[in-house]
Amino acid sequence: MSATTMPTPAATEGLKLFELAAADPEVRFSPHCWKTRMALAHKGLDANRVPWRFSDKQELAFSGQGFVPVMVDQGEVVSDSWQIALHLEQRYPERPSLFGSADAVPLARFVNAWADGVMLGAIAKVILVDIHRHIDVRDKEYFRTSREKRFGAPLEAVAADTASRLAELRAALAPLRSVLGHQEFVCGASPGYADYCVFGMFMWARCISGIELLAPDDKLVPWRERLLDAFGGMARQAAIAAKS
Amino acid sequence: MSATTMPTPAATEGLKLFELAAADPEVRFSPHCWKTRMALAHKGLDANRVPWRFSDKQELAFSGQGFVPVMVDQGEVVSDSWQIALHLEQRYPERPSLFGSADAVPLARFVNAWADGVMLGAIAKVILVDIHRHIDVRDKEYFRTSREKRFGAPLEAVAADTASRLAELRAALAPLRSVLGHQEFVCGASPGYADYCVFGMFMWARCISGIELLAPDDKLVPWRERLLDAFGGMARQAAIAAKS
Repeated sequence: MSATTMPTPAATEGLKLFELAAADPEVRFSPHCWKTRMALAHKGLDANRVPWRFSDKQELAFSGQGFVPVMVDQGEVVSDSWQIALHLEQRYPERPSLFGSADAVPLARFVNAWADGVMLGAIAKVILVDIHRHIDVRDKEYFRTSREKRFGAPLEAVAADTASRLAELRAALAPLRSVLGHQEFVCGASPGYADYCVFGMFMWARCISGIELLAPDDKLVPWRERLLDAFGGMARQAAIAAKS
Repeated sequence: MSATTMPTPAATEGLKLFELAAADPEVRFSPHCWKTRMALAHKGLDANRVPWRFSDKQELAFSGQGFVPVMVDQGEVVSDSWQIALHLEQRYPERPSLFGSADAVPLARFVNAWADGVMLGAIAKVILVDIHRHIDVRDKEYFRTSREKRFGAPLEAVAADTASRLAELRAALAPLRSVLGHQEFVCGASPGYADYCVFGMFMWARCISGIELLAPDDKLVPWRERLLDAFGGMARQAAIAAKS
């Protein structure tokens, strides 16, 4: 099978992906689930995408933990977006590689750690109130309590000064801006998993919040546009929460 | 020639490296020069290492710019540590690879951009006064003026609250700590250029300042120790500025 072959039923009929959903079940906004979604598209794989809410702990009991993404691949359960990426790379080696070569995997892990450790918190401070507004009513208390504990303040206080929070986020994106001044994608001439680790963070905000994270003239915009257009515009066409 | 062959005179006799030196010419403290020094050692190459001061602009005029590292490789002039790494990889492909594969180069560039964009500024705020103390007397005015302009405050004010500056630095190292909880080196099972980009920042502080950047129980310490021991303990044995 060549790397450009379209997914075959044999390869995908057993793929199921649990994704965090908003009150509107079509709105799938988790940054980590977006990493997986882009990775599946990169591999040319389709999955039965199941909406899941924070309060649906029972539905994930089979996985031994309580967070998405969880993927079931022909009976094998894989949790955690990074582990899912490694699984896809190993299970489907004949399809387009997410990393290019084994040497790039440890470095992609660094980009993922940076996205999770720096971008996630900085973006959360901008969109927390929007997330709370759009999630399912059963999830609201859990979300408020857990995030207020993490940030040490009411959601509304954390997200109050949007302009300052956006300025902090944009400053923190400097390393990304630096490399994308030299190359089309984080992974070089074509996108790979490290791109999706970062792009997933932008999809999180796009799907659940009306707040634009980047200034119009930010050098990151063209890169983000290229990924919105990738895979037939899959990300661009994704459902977003109705503006309130 | 195998990857483990020792450097031959033919390969190295034409290599010259201009390195930033302190008042003591044996103290070579530039983080960027340390990236290059580790890259040369990784390749098993030796260079004629020439001490250079900020005020020696004339000595670099041949390179068309005024900053080190500058390397001259058998007549070819290469400036900028990143360009030098790419040059070494291309010119000496039979020697141990700095990147492993071409797919890892764009991601190593991200690590380098993170080191330059995040670590450099955070460490500078800790060691600025020590740098000023130890550099050559001819360099002091340039250094003070340029750095005070960059940081918008007197050196002594920037570096005044060492405990707070160290706490900020240590928090900023979280992505590095995250990946080194899973792998021996940034580049995986063995060190590569992305490791040297980060390690060079630690060597900067080690050579010019008595301030320890990491807490004793920091998970980064064993990684730093491994690189201090690499290449026969080359970095560990490097001259450091006399404690005042």
